[in-house]
Amino acid sequence: MAWPILVLHGPNLNWLGQREPEIYGSLTLAELNEQLQTEAVALGAVLTCEQANGEGALIDAIQRAATRGDRGLVFNPGAYTHTSIALRDAIAGTGLPTVEVHISNVYARESFRHHSYIAPVAIGQISGLGIDSYRLGLQGLVAYLQRYDRNQTA
Amino acid sequence: MAWPILVLHGPNLNWLGQREPEIYGSLTLAELNEQLQTEAVALGAVLTCEQANGEGALIDAIQRAATRGDRGLVFNPGAYTHTSIALRDAIAGTGLPTVEVHISNVYARESFRHHSYIAPVAIGQISGLGIDSYRLGLQGLVAYLQRYDRNQTA
Amino acid sequence: MAWPILVLHGPNLNWLGQREPEIYGSLTLAELNEQLQTEAVALGAVLTCEQANGEGALIDAIQRAATRGDRGLVFNPGAYTHTSIALRDAIAGTGLPTVEVHISNVYARESFRHHSYIAPVAIGQISGLGIDSYRLGLQGLVAYLQRYDRNQTA
Amino acid sequence: MAWPILVLHGPNLNWLGQREPEIYGSLTLAELNEQLQTEAVALGAVLTCEQANGEGALIDAIQRAATRGDRGLVFNPGAYTHTSIALRDAIAGTGLPTVEVHISNVYARESFRHHSYIAPVAIGQISGLGIDSYRLGLQGLVAYLQRYDRNQTA
Amino acid sequence: MAWPILVLHGPNLNWLGQREPEIYGSLTLAELNEQLQTEAVALGAVLTCEQANGEGALIDAIQRAATRGDRGLVFNPGAYTHTSIALRDAIAGTGLPTVEVHISNVYARESFRHHSYIAPVAIGQISGLGIDSYRLGLQGLVAYLQRYDRNQTA
Amino acid sequence: MAWPILVLHGPNLNWLGQREPEIYGSLTLAELNEQLQTEAVALGAVLTCEQANGEGALIDAIQRAATRGDRGLVFNPGAYTHTSIALRDAIAGTGLPTVEVHISNVYARESFRHHSYIAPVAIGQISGLGIDSYRLGLQGLVAYLQRYDRNQTA
Amino acid sequence: MAWPILVLHGPNLNWLGQREPEIYGSLTLAELNEQLQTEAVALGAVLTCEQANGEGALIDAIQRAATRGDRGLVFNPGAYTHTSIALRDAIAGTGLPTVEVHISNVYARESFRHHSYIAPVAIGQISGLGIDSYRLGLQGLVAYLQRYDRNQTA
Amino acid sequence: MAWPILVLHGPNLNWLGQREPEIYGSLTLAELNEQLQTEAVALGAVLTCEQANGEGALIDAIQRAATRGDRGLVFNPGAYTHTSIALRDAIAGTGLPTVEVHISNVYARESFRHHSYIAPVAIGQISGLGIDSYRLGLQGLVAYLQRYDRNQTA
Amino acid sequence: MAWPILVLHGPNLNWLGQREPEIYGSLTLAELNEQLQTEAVALGAVLTCEQANGEGALIDAIQRAATRGDRGLVFNPGAYTHTSIALRDAIAGTGLPTVEVHISNVYARESFRHHSYIAPVAIGQISGLGIDSYRLGLQGLVAYLQRYDRNQTA
Amino acid sequence: MAWPILVLHGPNLNWLGQREPEIYGSLTLAELNEQLQTEAVALGAVLTCEQANGEGALIDAIQRAATRGDRGLVFNPGAYTHTSIALRDAIAGTGLPTVEVHISNVYARESFRHHSYIAPVAIGQISGLGIDSYRLGLQGLVAYLQRYDRNQTA
Amino acid sequence: MAWPILVLHGPNLNWLGQREPEIYGSLTLAELNEQLQTEAVALGAVLTCEQANGEGALIDAIQRAATRGDRGLVFNPGAYTHTSIALRDAIAGTGLPTVEVHISNVYARESFRHHSYIAPVAIGQISGLGIDSYRLGLQGLVAYLQRYDRNQTA
Amino acid sequence: MAWPILVLHGPNLNWLGQREPEIYGSLTLAELNEQLQTEAVALGAVLTCEQANGEGALIDAIQRAATRGDRGLVFNPGAYTHTSIALRDAIAGTGLPTVEVHISNVYARESFRHHSYIAPVAIGQISGLGIDSYRLGLQGLVAYLQRYDRNQTA
Repeated sequence: MAWPILVLHGPNLNWLGQREPEIYGSLTLAELNEQLQTEAVALGAVLTCEQANGEGALIDAIQRAATRGDRGLVFNPGAYTHTSIALRDAIAGTGLPTVEVHISNVYARESFRHHSYIAPVAIGQISGLGIDSYRLGLQGLVAYLQRYDRNQTA
Repeated sequence: MAWPILVLHGPNLNWLGQREPEIYGSLTLAELNEQLQTEAVALGAVLTCEQANGEGALIDAIQRAATRGDRGLVFNPGAYTHTSIALRDAIAGTGLPTVEVHISNVYARESFRHHSYIAPVAIGQISGLGIDSYRLGLQGLVAYLQRYDRNQTA
Repeated sequence: MAWPILVLHGPNLNWLGQREPEIYGSLTLAELNEQLQTEAVALGAVLTCEQANGEGALIDAIQRAATRGDRGLVFNPGAYTHTSIALRDAIAGTGLPTVEVHISNVYARESFRHHSYIAPVAIGQISGLGIDSYRLGLQGLVAYLQRYDRNQTA
Repeated sequence: MAWPILVLHGPNLNWLGQREPEIYGSLTLAELNEQLQTEAVALGAVLTCEQANGEGALIDAIQRAATRGDRGLVFNPGAYTHTSIALRDAIAGTGLPTVEVHISNVYARESFRHHSYIAPVAIGQISGLGIDSYRLGLQGLVAYLQRYDRNQTA
Repeated sequence: MAWPILVLHGPNLNWLGQREPEIYGSLTLAELNEQLQTEAVALGAVLTCEQANGEGALIDAIQRAATRGDRGLVFNPGAYTHTSIALRDAIAGTGLPTVEVHISNVYARESFRHHSYIAPVAIGQISGLGIDSYRLGLQGLVAYLQRYDRNQTA
Repeated sequence: MAWPILVLHGPNLNWLGQREPEIYGSLTLAELNEQLQTEAVALGAVLTCEQANGEGALIDAIQRAATRGDRGLVFNPGAYTHTSIALRDAIAGTGLPTVEVHISNVYARESFRHHSYIAPVAIGQISGLGIDSYRLGLQGLVAYLQRYDRNQTA
Repeated sequence: MAWPILVLHGPNLNWLGQREPEIYGSLTLAELNEQLQTEAVALGAVLTCEQANGEGALIDAIQRAATRGDRGLVFNPGAYTHTSIALRDAIAGTGLPTVEVHISNVYARESFRHHSYIAPVAIGQISGLGIDSYRLGLQGLVAYLQRYDRNQTA
Repeated sequence: MAWPILVLHGPNLNWLGQREPEIYGSLTLAELNEQLQTEAVALGAVLTCEQANGEGALIDAIQRAATRGDRGLVFNPGAYTHTSIALRDAIAGTGLPTVEVHISNVYARESFRHHSYIAPVAIGQISGLGIDSYRLGLQGLVAYLQRYDRNQTA
Repeated sequence: MAWPILVLHGPNLNWLGQREPEIYGSLTLAELNEQLQTEAVALGAVLTCEQANGEGALIDAIQRAATRGDRGLVFNPGAYTHTSIALRDAIAGTGLPTVEVHISNVYARESFRHHSYIAPVAIGQISGLGIDSYRLGLQGLVAYLQRYDRNQTA
Repeated sequence: MAWPILVLHGPNLNWLGQREPEIYGSLTLAELNEQLQTEAVALGAVLTCEQANGEGALIDAIQRAATRGDRGLVFNPGAYTHTSIALRDAIAGTGLPTVEVHISNVYARESFRHHSYIAPVAIGQISGLGIDSYRLGLQGLVAYLQRYDRNQTA
Repeated sequence: MAWPILVLHGPNLNWLGQREPEIYGSLTLAELNEQLQTEAVALGAVLTCEQANGEGALIDAIQRAATRGDRGLVFNPGAYTHTSIALRDAIAGTGLPTVEVHISNVYARESFRHHSYIAPVAIGQISGLGIDSYRLGLQGLVAYLQRYDRNQTA
Repeated sequence: MAWPILVLHGPNLNWLGQREPEIYGSLTLAELNEQLQTEAVALGAVLTCEQANGEGALIDAIQRAATRGDRGLVFNPGAYTHTSIALRDAIAGTGLPTVEVHISNVYARESFRHHSYIAPVAIGQISGLGIDSYRLGLQGLVAYLQRYDRNQTA
């Protein structure tokens, strides 16, 4: 059976393809989600893809995922990475294994983008590899779940 | 006549009883609200209890309370305690006497939880006493309103 | 033809005229918007005026403005000025020319109000001149658009 | 049988009622202790009340309490809150469950009063509710001891 | 009768039009002053325009303005914005209502240009709108003086 | 009638004349007190001179002075200048007009000696003038009391 | 033809499998390199794998890779991540596209491990996914080289 | 023979008596200088009194004093206290024994007034005692010169 | 003849053996002193052992030691290590050669325990070696005194 | 034809030879200028040498140099190095190639002398080599101009 | 059987006896090692003594010691104390019980020498006691190993 | 007889001419050394030129220079400038007069390049003048040695 996973996009990512394409590329969010769905099939996962601009709406989405039994979270928290303790608490509170992903290399941008409230409660972080960050994040999460389930079974 | 009071719960508190029970206990939010309602009767207060994950929704709730004539606020701002100047402005702007409460001892956790934007505009702060923080906060607020009304009458 | 412009008011500004009148004056938001509409006619601009308490809702409003072809933004981000990188990203991402305005002199208040995440991506900032900050901000934006269009034509 | 508890007042609190009454109220320390004794009877506790201006004398008092078998501490460390690691060590060393209380809202005063060396080793902290801070602190401590004893018995 | 106002330009502004035109534009200081004089007539104000490179000379100019009864100050302190407490004291000491103006958006430049010693003692600040910053600053100051005189008369 | 004044010496000042004479001179504390007594007669003041090494004992001395009706305090807090908020509170709480004095130039020593918790609640501060710091501090305090009494009488 | 790539392991990574296995796992470095070689074949890459404990030796390795025409670098700088500007300069100076990888989640460890001198000159960073960090980093690098070569050809 | 001494007043002190009298009193600078001249006669000193608003002009004055053989300096550097390393160098370079004086208690004002570049190269500092700060500073300087000359003679 | 040496224990060390035995071990202070006395005989030293919880009492003890001619100090300042400038001054003022000792490894505990006001005026510091810290500190002090006396004699 | 160059000396450098000769040597400013003139002839340059104590006067001198067509600036900004953004702006605004020179090794002195506002807009900086700093700075500037002119011609 | 122990000397310690003898004494490294060997015999230990200037070479030495079964490390990391996280990782990774030693009192030198990356992973730290720091460090390590082995056996 | 001098190049400088030529120019290290050798002849000096990427290897080189009697050091520490206390200690320990040189203007680059551990123990620093920094550094060093030898002889 496939692992149900939430792919969650934070603020302004609905403008992907329109917003600063020299930083974020020209693919739209819908196209990105489609690519990730295809990738997921190959990995034995099934994705729910959501986007929201509001901090509260993103917390709601994480709680819904936990309630419906999703096994993990691929999360691009966008600018909330640097300002939201509430999203950190949502991840820690639901206990969803989370990979934090960023399209651009946040460490090559303004210094206020170098700090992440999410990273310490995530299992890992990927940044700078364009939309491959999502794809590799999904792979990393599935590999984590495989190891986890194997340990549980053993 | 009873004092109308808003009890407001911030982000992730709808997961009370589910989220990290070793920190937050196993009581649900509905059960907590019920206990507080009972306590309120004894104190001569009548409560509205609300919860929201969004910063804007919490501001809306505070403004509604002020508009309908609530006399005070028992507020657990959760993670917004440390990041929201807008909630501070809502309290200062409406002028609602506010007691800030926290279930866990925020000072025994990460250092970014030690600072509160709310505390300087609140009348007081209670933290670390489990759900008693709410109960004692309600008592403290009612005692404040009694003193206040007595002064007004005199 | 008139320049379409979004006038956007951030958190707690719906309480204008009620909230701390010694700081913010006694004009209501509706009255302020009306005055700005009149001013806009004289300047050859046409305004959409919106207010929201939520960070996500404000991002939505900025994206809608960009989508419908608004030419600029007069923005009072209120307390989000100091905490929201997501709103900064929305302005940078949509590319809307923005004038940041504040009714009160933020530099004469608490030090956490001195820093703005918005200012570096705005074309300018006006603070402390009461509701004239909006009126002058609108003028400054229109003058910017005139110069811009003249350069494009040339 | 009643819980023996130490109520300990730090530096300058012997001037209560005389010192800056607009901040600290007009009740004297003797009167406050008397009120707390009455409250304690209702809660099934019995109090020892002490005050000292010296850091060493306060450590002595905490050690004496632990030696004679007191079950908890309601402690207003006054200005030592912000400067004394030795008092923190005394609480951690004796293991006495402690509620830290402050009459005034320390978070609305100078920034050097915002940090507490005591809070991380206390079970909770109450500030800003006038002398109710003591009363509610006593309630919170007794509730803590009830839960604790119940767990031990179970 | 017209309001006498000092327009004061700080260090290096005598090079306007020559210095870094991509930041400051190509208008000379003399031309700018002329434009402001025209604008002033329409607003019912009469301007004295001065420039100096020295901190002491700028203090002298502010004191002279106060002595001759000028009603306000439109001040571009240039680099002294960030380093001169003495100019701040001159404004506070003479009590001249002051609008601080900057041609460039100081918040989009080096971080040492983000802090202003002048802003807290000014009534407002305008930055980033090119030479319109002066024009709008003048309008804002006159509007302030109108309100002020109306209050005095009332 | 003479003004009763407390001259209070902080930690290690009982070693005056012995301790680091190249910094503090070779006069003993007893000799210094004697000189100050003579000076006091000429100024119309009468002194109590005390020294203590403990923070609590110094608070006790300040409270005793206030209780017996002393009109002011010449205080060399020694190293407690830099670490004691409790002594600051004792001065603010008793309301005793205080001149803070230091024998050595604290600003020419380690940087941790540059900050004073006492100075903001003192009327003035004198440092670096050897034992003249005391003598001039006494003069400054008496001049302050003369102005104060003259104002009260008028 | 396959892309030649350097996989470079920094200080203490020769102890992989021995050192703190609860953090780093039980695979040895030789085994890891073997797995990566297999993975590389599938991706159309050919790897050189090196390890060194010295900062200078690692710079030497990077320079050798650039000299022999390697197309990219998968680099786990270990503790030098946080202290070595010289390694950053080696990457920037040779111009080798670099993916920085970490086995453990550095953001969940001591705060001095949160800063990276390497990240701003890398194309991306992956941390926390165990040895998958290397595998995914290799994938991300190859995808980058594919895009790059495609652009060059176009 | 009398000691020649320079009394030097920094920026804005020519407005003494006009500027913020609640802080600085109502005496004018001319009247203050006259009082100090009278005091000087009694102390066996003869004063040159100067004021300047410019940092360079104050350095010039200090150099002139050293050139004409003045024995010391009573210096109120005003706002330059906190910003001028050049004035510090002038004092250190000329070797003039200097007492730094402030009319107001700089430690009870904004935190940027707490640091002095002058104090470490002065022999002492007096602040907060109104114009007595000058009078006592003059006394302290003369006492210093007496001790100094006595040592030289011995 | 034996060197007289003071072994001084700071706050909470009278609880040795009771307080947090997992950090401090189970030996009592009396037993420790006894062991050190034995060790001292072998080294040709004779010890006075004292303990106090108060900062002032510890200063008194150091002054008494200097007065009676003790040759050195083995000092565990406990929590005062990090907060007491007055104890530093007592050591510097009396000139007693001092070895600072700590039972636990203060550098492996909270960051506020990493700084020592005492260390810069001590001849050396030993931490983390359990009660051996005292024993080795005593050895180090005696070795220092031997070298010192040998130099004096030579 | 020779390159016209301004050699500009900042505050207190007119005291060269008198001021702290152990730091600055015993050559006077006139003698130094003479030596530099001789050096200039050999290098094909012709110098204007100026000194001023005032920040404004130094800006004036730089603007005059630019106006008369000087090709470069050898500048010892003295203490203004660390405090003057206005001088930085004058250099950037006039575009004069500038070598910043210091007689003493500023990095071996107080930490506030380690930062330079001038260095980032200069082509280079020389410090610590005595008056050779000027001589070598002149050489470095001429070499820069030679390269520059060669590039222009090519 | 004797405990095998590595005595490891960091950068520049091969210059012992030559380098700044007023700080480090005149004993050479070879002589020091010889003294320590003698001491070791008495303690039942056998030493390997090594020195290296390179960070990588020191890591190599620590790994070799762990591989050959050394039981502990007496380590003077020299300047790497303050800059090397890689050495810290080598100690933590090999698990070798380590005593950090310094010849000079690092806390009486520049502030950048006060922080140690090594101390938190060492069992203890000794500084300031000259070459006795090594001797006492060896004793402390052997005492630690004795206790450890006794516990293992029990 | 000629002065023997070590010219030492730090990490990545072996890539001179290849690495970021827009910053460092196109001359190779061999060519630069050759030019310096020629220059040295004219100055009466004889050079040893070395380069290393490792911190330890650079310390070794400095120690070898001191051992063979070199009289001074022209040192470009590259990135180690900002991170190596060990190199600072090597210079201070050997006592070699050192001129620190940088090809690029480090003050116009990232802020972590503004601090130098080397500068305080060097006699001077030259940066930003391209490879002239070396040439002028050599001149400055020789001039220093001339003055030094002249003083020794006198």
